[in-house]
Amino acid sequence: MIIVMKSGAEKREKDEVLKRIKELGYTPHVIHGTTRDVIGAIGDERGKLALQEIESMNGVERVVPILQPYKLASKEVMKESSIVKISDTVSIGGSKIVVMAGPCSVESEKQIIECAEAVKRAGGDILRGGAFKPRTSPYSFQGLEEEGLKLLAKARDITGLPIVTEVINPETADLVAEYADILQIGARNSQNFALLKKVGQLKKPVLLKRGLAMTIQELLMSAEYILSEGNQSVILCERGIRTFETATRNTLDLSAIPVLRSKTHLPIVIDPSHGTGHHLYVSPMSLAAVAAGADGLIIEVHPDPERATSDGPQSLKPEKFAVLMEKMRRVAEAVDRTI
Amino acid sequence: MIIVMKSGAEKREKDEVLKRIKELGYTPHVIHGTTRDVIGAIGDERGKLALQEIESMNGVERVVPILQPYKLASKEVMKESSIVKISDTVSIGGSKIVVMAGPCSVESEKQIIECAEAVKRAGGDILRGGAFKPRTSPYSFQGLEEEGLKLLAKARDITGLPIVTEVINPETADLVAEYADILQIGARNSQNFALLKKVGQLKKPVLLKRGLAMTIQELLMSAEYILSEGNQSVILCERGIRTFETATRNTLDLSAIPVLRSKTHLPIVIDPSHGTGHHLYVSPMSLAAVAAGADGLIIEVHPDPERATSDGPQSLKPEKFAVLMEKMRRVAEAVDRTI
Amino acid sequence: MIIVMKSGAEKREKDEVLKRIKELGYTPHVIHGTTRDVIGAIGDERGKLALQEIESMNGVERVVPILQPYKLASKEVMKESSIVKISDTVSIGGSKIVVMAGPCSVESEKQIIECAEAVKRAGGDILRGGAFKPRTSPYSFQGLEEEGLKLLAKARDITGLPIVTEVINPETADLVAEYADILQIGARNSQNFALLKKVGQLKKPVLLKRGLAMTIQELLMSAEYILSEGNQSVILCERGIRTFETATRNTLDLSAIPVLRSKTHLPIVIDPSHGTGHHLYVSPMSLAAVAAGADGLIIEVHPDPERATSDGPQSLKPEKFAVLMEKMRRVAEAVDRTI
Amino acid sequence: MIIVMKSGAEKREKDEVLKRIKELGYTPHVIHGTTRDVIGAIGDERGKLALQEIESMNGVERVVPILQPYKLASKEVMKESSIVKISDTVSIGGSKIVVMAGPCSVESEKQIIECAEAVKRAGGDILRGGAFKPRTSPYSFQGLEEEGLKLLAKARDITGLPIVTEVINPETADLVAEYADILQIGARNSQNFALLKKVGQLKKPVLLKRGLAMTIQELLMSAEYILSEGNQSVILCERGIRTFETATRNTLDLSAIPVLRSKTHLPIVIDPSHGTGHHLYVSPMSLAAVAAGADGLIIEVHPDPERATSDGPQSLKPEKFAVLMEKMRRVAEAVDRTI
Repeated sequence: MIIVMKSGAEKREKDEVLKRIKELGYTPHVIHGTTRDVIGAIGDERGKLALQEIESMNGVERVVPILQPYKLASKEVMKESSIVKISDTVSIGGSKIVVMAGPCSVESEKQIIECAEAVKRAGGDILRGGAFKPRTSPYSFQGLEEEGLKLLAKARDITGLPIVTEVINPETADLVAEYADILQIGARNSQNFALLKKVGQLKKPVLLKRGLAMTIQELLMSAEYILSEGNQSVILCERGIRTFETATRNTLDLSAIPVLRSKTHLPIVIDPSHGTGHHLYVSPMSLAAVAAGADGLIIEVHPDPERATSDGPQSLKPEKFAVLMEKMRRVAEAVDRTI
Repeated sequence: MIIVMKSGAEKREKDEVLKRIKELGYTPHVIHGTTRDVIGAIGDERGKLALQEIESMNGVERVVPILQPYKLASKEVMKESSIVKISDTVSIGGSKIVVMAGPCSVESEKQIIECAEAVKRAGGDILRGGAFKPRTSPYSFQGLEEEGLKLLAKARDITGLPIVTEVINPETADLVAEYADILQIGARNSQNFALLKKVGQLKKPVLLKRGLAMTIQELLMSAEYILSEGNQSVILCERGIRTFETATRNTLDLSAIPVLRSKTHLPIVIDPSHGTGHHLYVSPMSLAAVAAGADGLIIEVHPDPERATSDGPQSLKPEKFAVLMEKMRRVAEAVDRTI
Repeated sequence: MIIVMKSGAEKREKDEVLKRIKELGYTPHVIHGTTRDVIGAIGDERGKLALQEIESMNGVERVVPILQPYKLASKEVMKESSIVKISDTVSIGGSKIVVMAGPCSVESEKQIIECAEAVKRAGGDILRGGAFKPRTSPYSFQGLEEEGLKLLAKARDITGLPIVTEVINPETADLVAEYADILQIGARNSQNFALLKKVGQLKKPVLLKRGLAMTIQELLMSAEYILSEGNQSVILCERGIRTFETATRNTLDLSAIPVLRSKTHLPIVIDPSHGTGHHLYVSPMSLAAVAAGADGLIIEVHPDPERATSDGPQSLKPEKFAVLMEKMRRVAEAVDRTI
Repeated sequence: MIIVMKSGAEKREKDEVLKRIKELGYTPHVIHGTTRDVIGAIGDERGKLALQEIESMNGVERVVPILQPYKLASKEVMKESSIVKISDTVSIGGSKIVVMAGPCSVESEKQIIECAEAVKRAGGDILRGGAFKPRTSPYSFQGLEEEGLKLLAKARDITGLPIVTEVINPETADLVAEYADILQIGARNSQNFALLKKVGQLKKPVLLKRGLAMTIQELLMSAEYILSEGNQSVILCERGIRTFETATRNTLDLSAIPVLRSKTHLPIVIDPSHGTGHHLYVSPMSLAAVAAGADGLIIEVHPDPERATSDGPQSLKPEKFAVLMEKMRRVAEAVDRTI
């Protein structure tokens, strides 16, 4: 870390800081500037965040961290991109771009099987569908719960598509893991550390969504929670951040793709449905995600959006999804990948 | 709700919308405008969010909700301000402004008792201190857990101050409730609905913090989760939202006080320590909170901030806290309240 | 507009609102809801924004506008996409995607001509370069001013590339218009209405950048200023908005492309250089912009970024730009367009 | 500045950076860390922003500025608070808190004089009123222009109150300065550098509003533009920033008061009317601003808000303003100031 002293800091104050740096196990190194001193604290900063507390000492203006606070998620630890294996035939992170699609919520056997077949027919790789639903309102549909998990499993049996579904509580995580091929951590639970630790202990791949106000660094710290518990199969998902703009439900931050690519080996998936909140915008943003280098997409598809129990306005009808798959295939080829 | 049709919408499309509104149990009412039609859907919107799905129908431009989606938290249900009883002598929501203070984390018996005594001496009402800590990094200090709860209880025995501490997991909520007088839900768990339901079932007051990217309406929806499970003792807490400004750790939104006052009967507490992230800014913002009408404050106090395991830079030393208490007393009087 | 009355509004209050609506030239239409009344005010809202003032009347909860406040920029006025002619050979808005490239600032004859030739060689269509520079600091390089304009003109003479350059002051707008083929309005001047009116009176195409905290609706209102003065050649440019994320200089909002496409006939250009602030992220975001349907790109290219007087970190070297042009060509083909 | 090298940076790359630092007139100082090198560049950073361009060199991870980029606005240059003299009897920056009040727009002689008298009667110090109005829509009322200035001057003649009014264009700045006692730069022009330079050359105090997406550092840089042209009478104004919250028009950032106090000697004024956008929230936020240490307030007052040509919903009626003045007086006394 770099400790920037105030311009009028006294010698006594500086000495206290130097002493404190040594106490914490770092080697201080002073640079005498024209108007103030700057002190480098040499040593591995990770696991020693107490260094930040130096900011409250007299004479200190601010403390600037130099290292990224994550290790296992970083490219320093693993230079090549990770490939997360989902099933015998599906992996995320290679040259093939993986498409997950399906309804926001599992509503009925008919609905989920109809969806699964449409996804399969259009060339999708994985079926998505929520059984436990985190809803802003306690009065909204909260999901079919275990019944929903069973319906998803049935759809998998019929189509062969692996399934991704959300886990919202450490207490029901084992149950979800019995059925799911990928455990999804939703945006609102992206810093629910008890849940992150729990899925870190399970042996299933995790799709970790970025929170609405989460920096990319914080997303990697949440991934680090899962990785540090021993689960190496983490897939990151950008799904829109909250900004002042209201024309879209969220602002889909596609620049997260190259930024993450430069910092981590973990695969990167884009959710254009939650990212925009409107079915009209899903196709252009899906194509953009492919062009920008995403490893996968997760797209809401519903046979009857105006009767969906949730997220109807942002769901594609099966026929539109099939058209989008065709378009994505062409863009993927143009960037030397396949779908 | 109000359904705004597109300017060129066809009669057939409009008929479909009218039919769907009736199916959902509402009475449609059409206003023929100069360039487009607008349809009012008459009926109680709450519990019927499917109406929003109409937005995906052909010919519809957008759907505008009219009612607030919360009930129990609203002033429509209860016109007078709620007073939440904490102990025989402490309540939140009346003319007395309640001050909660203490360290971010419980670190040792010496530290928490020293803190508690300083808080008591300065006239604070409630002791704060974290035993289970939600930390961004898995490598940071995660709290003393049950040992921390026991130390808090000990500090309560000595000083008589009720204690507020955070609950981070439904699985350990009962344990925390055995010790705590107030259960705190942190900003990062403010939409952890499993946890909200759990504390809604407990018989302890809940201090619900606003999330970093949470609108005031969403804060009230999260309160509604707790209220709808049967726990009426909910206290709301503004602790800073995330914006583009980096001079402060967060942007403390004091206008949340009058906005919440106009919408809910629940008491409102301000956290200037997390709200600003810097001890220098805590005092002015505490005074501002009192002047703006807050029912309480929660302030970080630590005897040795530069050696704190967390949040040192934003903690006040005991002597500064005592000075602040005096200043707050004067401002409270000027707005006809006491501290 | 829709006026939502408070649930306990009195008849007297409602009568006042009805009277006021009529005074303002609208026809009121009351919907009696289950808990409150909602009043539609029928008539064209534009040019009569005083209707918003009804929000301050007793008994009124809020006023919801129905119509978009812009006319000339809207698709209602012009259903087909506009094509803005820049020169005999270059137009923006058709199936060919137009690439503008060059340095942030014009620094010297050698630099701008070297850049222009590199842009030309790689297949770029228009040369960009700043002569009048709006800089956050008064101590930063403020541009070569008229000398810079002359150097741009020289580069145009040599390469045949039309030039786009920024205008920052109504007083020097005529001077810039003597040299430039496209007048650029920068993000920080996007609501400088005096400047918008001035360029609206000139006979040159305008590239209007979105402000850092500007909604898409406000961008269209700023375009409306230019259009309503008689200048129909307006090109919109998304260049990143300001959010909490600091890993990129701004957050490039590519969803602005489909959103704008659904609301306006004006062409849409993306600036991935300012949008991300880092040369490593420029290529992926350029490809994404092409895939999402942009009509053009504006990219910073500099032969010696580490010696640039401004924006070095986000500038591409000529050889990298040439590679990017090749890649963009392939993605453009995949979405049935050319570059 | 501090240059952080990449962990695998080569010696050749580091040598290039050292060479470049020297070329730019700084003295490099290398700290060899455990995983990477960090280089301090010793010398005054201001006026030499080209140092930032080093970020584009090979082997460099990022460049961290140490010094604030402003000089004249900083407390380093002037430790005591500035007092800006407005008239023989009114100054801003001392122990007396100054209240500016009046309508958003000057609409008629009757309206502005009625307002001025109400402001005077309640104890206000300065009359505000817009003659040139920057409006989002070209179809909205744009102000009475010079006629409005004359009416303001008439109101000043009658009441003795100095006047503050907005200047929106360098071309009309001299005209406004003939009439006004304080020149206001609005939020949307806060980075209109041509305008800032122009008012820096005039001999009138300037009230500089913070832009909607402007950091506190950028606000001080805009002040620096005015100061560096020779005008030392700059007053800063926080008026709400744009965030995701929509319950208020903007989010009033009161923590700007202590943050600015720690960084600059310039006086600080709060605008609770634009900051909240709703008359109900103006009083609590005004009291909060006084408690937090503001040197002044600027409040919208209108005799007939529902007929105002602009900003009616956020204007106080004269009688409510008078009540607020009384309340502010009590809070001011509680923090040892007067109003």
